Amino acid sequence: MPNNNNPINFLLYGVLVYELLETLQRKLAMPALIKRLKEDAPRAVLADHMSRADVVIALQYANMPAAPKLRLLQVPGAGLDQIKFDDVPPRASICNAYGHDVAGGEYVLLAMLAWCHEFVATHESMKAGSWHMSGRTGAPLHDELYGKTIGILGLGPIGLAAARLAKAFGTTVLGCNRTVREQPDFVDQIYPLQDLHEFLGRCDFVAVCIALAPQTVGLLNRVALSRMKKTAVVVNVARGAIIDEDALFEALRDKQIAGAVIDAWYRYPTPTDLTIAPSKHPFASLPNVLMTPHSSIWTRGMIERRWTDIAANIDALTSGAALKNIVRQPLS
Amino acid sequence: MPNNNNPINFLLYGVLVYELLETLQRKLAMPALIKRLKEDAPRAVLADHMSRADVVIALQYANMPAAPKLRLLQVPGAGLDQIKFDDVPPRASICNAYGHDVAGGEYVLLAMLAWCHEFVATHESMKAGSWHMSGRTGAPLHDELYGKTIGILGLGPIGLAAARLAKAFGTTVLGCNRTVREQPDFVDQIYPLQDLHEFLGRCDFVAVCIALAPQTVGLLNRVALSRMKKTAVVVNVARGAIIDEDALFEALRDKQIAGAVIDAWYRYPTPTDLTIAPSKHPFASLPNVLMTPHSSIWTRGMIERRWTDIAANIDALTSGAALKNIVRQPLS
Repeated sequence: MPNNNNPINFLLYGVLVYELLETLQRKLAMPALIKRLKEDAPRAVLADHMSRADVVIALQYANMPAAPKLRLLQVPGAGLDQIKFDDVPPRASICNAYGHDVAGGEYVLLAMLAWCHEFVATHESMKAGSWHMSGRTGAPLHDELYGKTIGILGLGPIGLAAARLAKAFGTTVLGCNRTVREQPDFVDQIYPLQDLHEFLGRCDFVAVCIALAPQTVGLLNRVALSRMKKTAVVVNVARGAIIDEDALFEALRDKQIAGAVIDAWYRYPTPTDLTIAPSKHPFASLPNVLMTPHSSIWTRGMIERRWTDIAANIDALTSGAALKNIVRQPLS
Repeated sequence: MPNNNNPINFLLYGVLVYELLETLQRKLAMPALIKRLKEDAPRAVLADHMSRADVVIALQYANMPAAPKLRLLQVPGAGLDQIKFDDVPPRASICNAYGHDVAGGEYVLLAMLAWCHEFVATHESMKAGSWHMSGRTGAPLHDELYGKTIGILGLGPIGLAAARLAKAFGTTVLGCNRTVREQPDFVDQIYPLQDLHEFLGRCDFVAVCIALAPQTVGLLNRVALSRMKKTAVVVNVARGAIIDEDALFEALRDKQIAGAVIDAWYRYPTPTDLTIAPSKHPFASLPNVLMTPHSSIWTRGMIERRWTDIAANIDALTSGAALKNIVRQPLS
């Protein structure tokens, strides 16, 4: 077992965590030998590091080299959809990490407010020198968030944060969740997942905050989207695959729903292709889509909170303290 | 006095209220003879209508023809800076109108969230097909509103609405106000106007929500702006003239403050010039400025609430009910 004379070995793996070495080092109390590799490292180098690693920090874990000493796979995010649990050595714990609830909740409110107040188009027209979206020139009126019905699909950390903020704006807040849970005072009603269609039919906004899992892939399919109001807007801060790609594009193109604010996509850049389109469909060509590049939770506050927790977990391996956010206990 | 057999005469005056005739008619309970004119109406026509008007609804009142029967000048807005009180016949009441607090408060929060999360630039880059502002490609981190210190300059209806919403985001909320007033539980501290500089020095955001009046013209002058943090952002939803035009442009251009979200301007379009620039300075050329064309409160909800109150005031003249939002009682 690692101790002060025998520092813990760990590997920071993947381009998305590679740059966070210094952040982590600043937060660690216990001695540690940190290695870091990107996905394009030679397999032999990766295998060598894995053979000695007590801890691996990675967002993806599948077909990795043997890790006989591994005691902790620390996922530096909430989503576990890229972790192949059976590939993780049985004596290792698997933990995930949060700290993104504040940023995600703020983004959901920002998205809904920007939609109601037509902020982007209004800004762009004024930046271009036109008053045509002004009340002073008789422009059409904007909307308000006040009084709207906000549906939160998935009452996890982001969903709860968004729900709490939405309630402060004088909205009706509905939740829809896989597991039945106690209803917080800022949620007016919680629907079980089997009542998804009834839930969708009531919402002016549907904020997708649910984890990607076998039962949520394509959850918002063609039929589900058809149950939404024609005036409703979907906000996706979770995973692209929760909304059927073809059905979403068609619903937006054909105005079956009013619009979308999309942060979670169907395709992502890879180390070798930074220009890949986020979907096979040209969402950017649709006037009723606001879009951001999976940046909703990409905040300084998120990094600080998340990596404070991660450092505490690594220190816990040395100090014997309890791990936080365990999603799988050691199997043997 | 008007009654059911002798309907009230009123004049809807000015391009900004001209289109609201139907909204008003829908809300009136008592009979009324409504005339409407734009500013370009011949003086003789205006004089004829004014000579018979019991009520004038106008955002501007100066050098108007004689109105011997006038009992109510109803300003369909909160700001009274374009009303020359001495020109209004002494036996007329002057009332203003609200209903814009919800929209204004939402806009202030939207502006601050958009700034923190770099929403416009992030959207625009993604719309143009680039992932460069994504966490997936190692983009710089965004900010959060959580934990920030929000300064509300002017605790009127918009200021109070913005303060209440800001508090829900886990911020420290400071107010600065001309008249000392009771401190609501969502405001952490209220500064009197003479402590403006101390107030400004603490704020990460300064939301200008104060009325334009002799003591607030140029309130945020060069010296005041220099007391703001270099990282601070000003949001103006009140009147342009509250912030010194030259000083604001220079502070933004020279990065003495981090940025601005500007909805209230120095110049406005007129019926004969719809293309006038909003300032003598090219604010649109500055990368640290988000700008909208005085559209912050231009919402359906605002119109509904405001004109419900206005209709009630007009009905009150017939029914004898009390007027709402009186800013000047009859002088004789």
